[in-house]
Amino acid sequence: MSFLAHLESIVRQVDGAIAASVMGFDGIAVETHKLEDPADLELWTLWIEYSNVLGQLRRAAETLKTGELTEVAISTDKVLTLARTVSPEYFLILALKPTGNYGKGRYMLRLAAPQVRAEL
Amino acid sequence: MSFLAHLESIVRQVDGAIAASVMGFDGIAVETHKLEDPADLELWTLWIEYSNVLGQLRRAAETLKTGELTEVAISTDKVLTLARTVSPEYFLILALKPTGNYGKGRYMLRLAAPQVRAEL
Repeated sequence: MSFLAHLESIVRQVDGAIAASVMGFDGIAVETHKLEDPADLELWTLWIEYSNVLGQLRRAAETLKTGELTEVAISTDKVLTLARTVSPEYFLILALKPTGNYGKGRYMLRLAAPQVRAEL
Repeated sequence: MSFLAHLESIVRQVDGAIAASVMGFDGIAVETHKLEDPADLELWTLWIEYSNVLGQLRRAAETLKTGELTEVAISTDKVLTLARTVSPEYFLILALKPTGNYGKGRYMLRLAAPQVRAEL
């Protein structure tokens, strides 16, 4: 199964999903699947910003000995973003409409993470 | 109802809760209630780090026009952290054991946020 198949599967099965990606902590997406164009949303710029923040959180987790960073969820009025660490270099990221299925999104990322990791 | 009463109510009602705080985006806690000492966890240092990250996310939300930042959840192996914006200056933050009730935590913060805001 390619990365794209995993991403398509996530976006298809989560209500309100807009796009999903396998992304590096350096802000560069390896593979992306988007369901629709997020019109007035600067999603890719937002994800670059978020990847920077995720990198910071990962370093903080190391420094402060809280164990590995596993998951981050960021909600704003217009978009929900769920991210899950896949490896020290990569994470899965999923954007949802504010009305999207947050719980299912978390579940699908948790399920996909080890499968994506196995293919890195 | 004082801030402390809200914080006590949150910590009491959420399974696995360790501590809750009303905190400024500048990293200074206004009021804190902790249920137990998080032993090997540098919780307060972690929260200062997180408040810095929340400030960044709030600014990114403004710049990228995604609407206001409402909620952030950060999971590591040893601690779950839920935060909810209360005002442009303050947020509620709740630390849980990894086995804590994530959904109930989100619900309680959503409930408490407007009440805390009304008292700021």
